[in-house]
Amino acid sequence: MSDLYATILAGGSGTRLWPRSRKSSPKQFLDFTGTGTMLQEAFSRVSPIIPPERVWILTGERYVETVREQLPVLPAENVVGEPVGRGTAPAIGLAAMLLQRKNPNAIMAVLTADHIITYKERFREVLLEAAWVAGKGHLVTLGIKPSRPDTGYGYIERGEKLYDQRFPVYRVVRFTEKPNLEMAEQFVASGNYSWNSGMFIWRVDAILAEIERQMSELFDGLKQIVEAWGTDEQGKVLHSVWPTLPNETIDFGVMEHAKDVVVIPVEIGWSDVGSWNALWEVLPHDESGNVVQGNVILHDVGNSLVYSDKQLVAAVGIRDMVIVDSGDAVLVVPRSRSQEVKTIVNELKRRGLEDYLL
Amino acid sequence: MSDLYATILAGGSGTRLWPRSRKSSPKQFLDFTGTGTMLQEAFSRVSPIIPPERVWILTGERYVETVREQLPVLPAENVVGEPVGRGTAPAIGLAAMLLQRKNPNAIMAVLTADHIITYKERFREVLLEAAWVAGKGHLVTLGIKPSRPDTGYGYIERGEKLYDQRFPVYRVVRFTEKPNLEMAEQFVASGNYSWNSGMFIWRVDAILAEIERQMSELFDGLKQIVEAWGTDEQGKVLHSVWPTLPNETIDFGVMEHAKDVVVIPVEIGWSDVGSWNALWEVLPHDESGNVVQGNVILHDVGNSLVYSDKQLVAAVGIRDMVIVDSGDAVLVVPRSRSQEVKTIVNELKRRGLEDYLL
Repeated sequence: MSDLYATILAGGSGTRLWPRSRKSSPKQFLDFTGTGTMLQEAFSRVSPIIPPERVWILTGERYVETVREQLPVLPAENVVGEPVGRGTAPAIGLAAMLLQRKNPNAIMAVLTADHIITYKERFREVLLEAAWVAGKGHLVTLGIKPSRPDTGYGYIERGEKLYDQRFPVYRVVRFTEKPNLEMAEQFVASGNYSWNSGMFIWRVDAILAEIERQMSELFDGLKQIVEAWGTDEQGKVLHSVWPTLPNETIDFGVMEHAKDVVVIPVEIGWSDVGSWNALWEVLPHDESGNVVQGNVILHDVGNSLVYSDKQLVAAVGIRDMVIVDSGDAVLVVPRSRSQEVKTIVNELKRRGLEDYLL
Repeated sequence: MSDLYATILAGGSGTRLWPRSRKSSPKQFLDFTGTGTMLQEAFSRVSPIIPPERVWILTGERYVETVREQLPVLPAENVVGEPVGRGTAPAIGLAAMLLQRKNPNAIMAVLTADHIITYKERFREVLLEAAWVAGKGHLVTLGIKPSRPDTGYGYIERGEKLYDQRFPVYRVVRFTEKPNLEMAEQFVASGNYSWNSGMFIWRVDAILAEIERQMSELFDGLKQIVEAWGTDEQGKVLHSVWPTLPNETIDFGVMEHAKDVVVIPVEIGWSDVGSWNALWEVLPHDESGNVVQGNVILHDVGNSLVYSDKQLVAAVGIRDMVIVDSGDAVLVVPRSRSQEVKTIVNELKRRGLEDYLL
């Protein structure tokens, strides 16, 4: 499948995994497993089927050097830095145009650097089937089986079955971004909905046609940028045009009203690692149910996540706890309340202690 | 009461308050309250009734400089460094002889630098009454009302009431060091026992007579040392004789079989701070029941002790917990299990990580 390209989105800068996730080093650049950073893992899991020349990374301008250091195997031009974050629609549109210039038949898998996927071989099989479906002109989304009525995700309603391959492919009836709890509960109960994973596979001409149709202003702006790409004007045009592009997600700006969208429901051990507890859930545990990394001594500790970047963390007699030491800050919170790290982040801002977020 | 001297024992080097308590800086030299180190507090609480010239500190040789830095008001000669720890009997005996040389009528209050006393004014009133009793030749011990059948303390059985002053004074029937649990329960139930606080008040001639009678070898060794004290030979004799002295506590070596021992039961808010939980119990709490010191942000945290010497400690949604960050190590343990810090200390020794204890 020599037309298949991966574009990995690596621009996030969240604080849900504070104190380790920082503005200077958000989660996609961190190693939570001892096997590599999330970005390196995202690259490695497609590397058996897509060579480095066909892997592109989209990230913030400030992270371009970090990406090149973590993936030196990539051609330098394959790392694209956005001057400012404008949502996923401009980033994906730019990548689609750049790929189209290289290969008009390019099929583009939009992937993410800040998610964990446990079943990597199955994921690759899904990707290859999705690329085959995308080759027919459909816009393919990967849907995740919802494990709870989470109101933080987008939901995809399935319609008629279009193909019955190894992984069945369905027409998409409707996208619903972040429903209220009642709706989310109905969606999960019906068994007819998937979470939107944020992973898409499509032909570049197909997605660009939708962008041109639904977001013509974005399309025109991207055209300007791509015309200057590779010339002496590249930086100048990018920096002048990019900040004027609409700030929009691909989901809301394009997918919700796109014409030919299909979904492949997959079970690939996916997690967007939205909290320390989510990370604990998805990583392998030791015999006590702990996820441990770094300079740590535990005695009678169970079902806990304990990380230390530098100083010694010693814990005795605790259960279901998160303890994360980043070298300048340590967080202690029960797993069940690890979402509440945001209250600490807000308090740090309120007190003007933003150094602990940088 | 110009014959009253305080000798404060400040030689301990325990690890029960690890990671803050270290060999280089044991708990008596630490500030847990923001108002001063435990040694400074021990000095301050007698300073209204005893001037610095009559306060002596007995400590390990390696801590002499620390003591002088923390109490610069003391005459340098009043800080006595023991070449090695040989128990309290040699230390107290040496102090008694040195005081006797200065003032044959000296009354000596043996106090401790690593205990907390909450009701300081009452403590001073006790001391003055105890000095009056000691002036009659009795060996006075201060007894603590037992709050639980703790097997880690010595117990003092009361006999007949000898004086009925502001604080009644009883003859001592018996000392029992560290009884088993059954005995301890009987002692507490009887209401007739006090814990041995390790604080004593006596005339120097009275205690030296008992030392000479019961520990003649110690008495002779101390004589040698004191004869050389203040001469060019002081250091040489101290270092050659001290290590040969019997390694013994004053309780076992002298008090258990002394002839004229009395006890004053006192309620002075005493704690030997044997664990982080003991410290939490005795220090003032904020409105959430927390004891907090240093660089700490809490959200919905209650009945916990949270200390940080340097880096930020952030905690959310926890109860009854101890979190102590010393700069190179952080401890997390429920208050109810804070005694188990010893398992961590042992594990550090086992792994050869003794730097975390130094």
